Amino acid sequence: MARADSAETVAGWAADRAVDLWIVLGPSVQMGAAVDDGATVVALDELTSFGVFDAMREEGVDDARRVGVVSRLAEGVEAGRRAGAGAVVGVADGPQAAVQLVAAEPDAVVAERDLPELYASRYASGRPFRPRVLLNPGPALTSEAVKRAAAGVDICHRETEFTLLEQRVREKLLRVAEVGSDWRVALMSGSGTGADEMALRAAIRPGKRALVVVNGVYGDRLRAMADRAGIAVIVYERGWTEPADTAEVASLLGSEANVDAVAVVHHETTTGLLNPVADIAAVCRDVGVRVVVDGVSSFGVEELVLDGSGIDFLSCSSNKCLQGLPGAAFVFVSPAGLERLADVPSTSVYLDLAGYLAGETRNSVPFTPAIPALAALDAALDELLAIGSSAHRQRYARRAAVLDEVLVHAGLEPIVAAEHRSRTVRSVPLPAGIDYAALHDELKRHGYVIYAGQGPLATEIFRVCCMGTLEPEVLRAFGDRLEAAFAAQAVPA
Amino acid sequence: MARADSAETVAGWAADRAVDLWIVLGPSVQMGAAVDDGATVVALDELTSFGVFDAMREEGVDDARRVGVVSRLAEGVEAGRRAGAGAVVGVADGPQAAVQLVAAEPDAVVAERDLPELYASRYASGRPFRPRVLLNPGPALTSEAVKRAAAGVDICHRETEFTLLEQRVREKLLRVAEVGSDWRVALMSGSGTGADEMALRAAIRPGKRALVVVNGVYGDRLRAMADRAGIAVIVYERGWTEPADTAEVASLLGSEANVDAVAVVHHETTTGLLNPVADIAAVCRDVGVRVVVDGVSSFGVEELVLDGSGIDFLSCSSNKCLQGLPGAAFVFVSPAGLERLADVPSTSVYLDLAGYLAGETRNSVPFTPAIPALAALDAALDELLAIGSSAHRQRYARRAAVLDEVLVHAGLEPIVAAEHRSRTVRSVPLPAGIDYAALHDELKRHGYVIYAGQGPLATEIFRVCCMGTLEPEVLRAFGDRLEAAFAAQAVPA
Repeated sequence: MARADSAETVAGWAADRAVDLWIVLGPSVQMGAAVDDGATVVALDELTSFGVFDAMREEGVDDARRVGVVSRLAEGVEAGRRAGAGAVVGVADGPQAAVQLVAAEPDAVVAERDLPELYASRYASGRPFRPRVLLNPGPALTSEAVKRAAAGVDICHRETEFTLLEQRVREKLLRVAEVGSDWRVALMSGSGTGADEMALRAAIRPGKRALVVVNGVYGDRLRAMADRAGIAVIVYERGWTEPADTAEVASLLGSEANVDAVAVVHHETTTGLLNPVADIAAVCRDVGVRVVVDGVSSFGVEELVLDGSGIDFLSCSSNKCLQGLPGAAFVFVSPAGLERLADVPSTSVYLDLAGYLAGETRNSVPFTPAIPALAALDAALDELLAIGSSAHRQRYARRAAVLDEVLVHAGLEPIVAAEHRSRTVRSVPLPAGIDYAALHDELKRHGYVIYAGQGPLATEIFRVCCMGTLEPEVLRAFGDRLEAAFAAQAVPA
Repeated sequence: MARADSAETVAGWAADRAVDLWIVLGPSVQMGAAVDDGATVVALDELTSFGVFDAMREEGVDDARRVGVVSRLAEGVEAGRRAGAGAVVGVADGPQAAVQLVAAEPDAVVAERDLPELYASRYASGRPFRPRVLLNPGPALTSEAVKRAAAGVDICHRETEFTLLEQRVREKLLRVAEVGSDWRVALMSGSGTGADEMALRAAIRPGKRALVVVNGVYGDRLRAMADRAGIAVIVYERGWTEPADTAEVASLLGSEANVDAVAVVHHETTTGLLNPVADIAAVCRDVGVRVVVDGVSSFGVEELVLDGSGIDFLSCSSNKCLQGLPGAAFVFVSPAGLERLADVPSTSVYLDLAGYLAGETRNSVPFTPAIPALAALDAALDELLAIGSSAHRQRYARRAAVLDEVLVHAGLEPIVAAEHRSRTVRSVPLPAGIDYAALHDELKRHGYVIYAGQGPLATEIFRVCCMGTLEPEVLRAFGDRLEAAFAAQAVPA
């Protein structure tokens, strides 16, 4: 899988088989499905990687990732692995053979009669699992390095090598956050929502209340979290395209008693709206109120100075703007946030921020961590830091500008005013006469995945996002496809 | 990385470099660290995979996974990828070059001066990250297929291909559980502890109480979960090597009012002790009390008939006896368990069992799932089902018998009586005069990772477990190493 760098790459993803050359090592296997799909199939008696390399040269295929090896023999499977083949399939004649082949660790073991089904689902031109340009708000496209890191060596989480990995990830996260050494970051296994709930449960003392800003699905989710956790909530509601008004937050802080923390979403993925969290945090800091920010879809890409800002808890996830895989989430905690923890009894074992931080202090983790997701995040952070945090943010700013151009050219105006838009998500009204499902499916056929609206907006808008490893050229190519799809739907054949 | 199948494989893991042949493609790169470590280094001008294959043949290296490609050029990185090289490194002369190289997606991008450090940490004979026989109670060794599945195509969780993946995983889990179609299974992103807490929060109605069996760390954790969730708890405590007594549970159910559920750990990983959950569940079923079982380290390996048993909630994780990667967890729910959900208000958003099940009903997930962990679990379940659920359990029974033999031969008697032992975990007293840390480190040097005791047992015992893709031969080889280590410590040089 190459990077999403051009219209041609995307067209290939949308149409191509996963494997161009199948090599049957040893006894014959019926490969009709691959032949019918236009792949080349050759048979070899030599069960070695060098045999595979010779066949590749013979057939003019120079990419081992596009070579499949099929064998009834464990030695054939092993030769496929040694050749670095992109697909390695074992064909078993019965239960005993299956056991032998599973031990040789091919990607799949099937009976010969089930090969066509396996072929259709994993390798055929029409297979459902294939690379596509993900224009949803995460999980986003990730690099090959990130994915390979997830497939690294199995390690135990009580060993030094895991401690090193975790320390490295935390140290890099703190560098990306650009905070002082008095900040901490707690890593957990789960989604951004898990981190949000963990942060919220840690921020409000018994008998006190949370002021929650609600101007989208995720703000409403913060409200529900507080509510279900038994935390009394004051809701400050705004329209879904209106950022929170800092003066109104200040006024509520003045009029409402016992507010212990303000919870607010930095980037409402619902619409692509940014809330002025820095301004709100400054107000809260001045009156000694803690601030919980959902930074799940903003961290690493939107401009936000954390140190001294008044923000005390910032929850994030691995799989959006940091370009890692889903499965890991984390919460940054300010010095004032750390102080708060001492006064808030834990109301959960799994979502216990203080517990994770206490574990880190003794180089330990309370529960089995999602090691592959952490290893992937480590690789993603390396890529981000090789480019530079600031350059990464600027890259997203430029990319969002291209996306805006593309949408305007297609006659689409994002529902959020330009000055409040994020660098990653655009919600645009579905043009009259355009059916979302048909539009989605047509774009998907060409290799682009767009995203529906949420809640009351589900029938009115759709979303186009630009997280992940993709180049502006691809957004332009997407724009052309979008306009063609509109034209085709407006004038049905 | 081959399977843990022999003493020789393990010895190789413990000592070998990760890469035998480094190929520098294009402009020269200083590879002194690799040369000093005994690796072969060659330089090529031809930036193609075929050039890499020729060099492999020339040097007699037939395994692409043991070949590293280093290049200052994006084309060199790409050639390494096409050759299926096990390591691909980009060497950048400055920030601009780094940006170009990151786009080519090598495993790492470094300045030439940082190559020795990268080499030492990732590829050297002495590197910390290396395959070892994991004799800890999970994460366990997994197959290459499982790891490669985690590194599959990036997909969006709102698309059909994800729905297919999730349905497939759920269907296979229900097959492994051997339950009727009236059972459900909810998948979440997190560790087994997250699934435990989710199950417990779903099982007890307001104003009612939980009876929690505590005879190890994990039973005590169930107690803490209920406690922190505001659920009143009756603790039934037993010694850490004593299984729960079903008659005593029955008696407590008779004498204590308002018990809504019994929570019990099937396999106490603390010691390797099995609790008689089937008997306890039968008693509870007869008096209409729900049963929550922590099956995190037992599911798939220990014998347990779920259907009709009285067990209503069984929590599990992906990375132990199922031989998947860590990051996914799940809860099986019986028909009676499903009925209970309607009467228990949610006390969490992230740990809300009813919410996950409601999502599944409409082919959706409430939060971004850990897709790579699910894909890995899918592959692991394929391997398990190719062998057969019952054969998988029998394999573990035989393996545990070998482990017992090995321990007895080394003079070690597990602290749990034979009839109550699990098929995966053994806790044995640390012999007099043997220092755990020294023993651990000595065994680790030879490629084996053992596990410390927990809580009050930390200084008295150590644990040896046999989860994952390992063969009995390896347990025997471990036994030899263990005896040698004892001998060396008992008679210091």
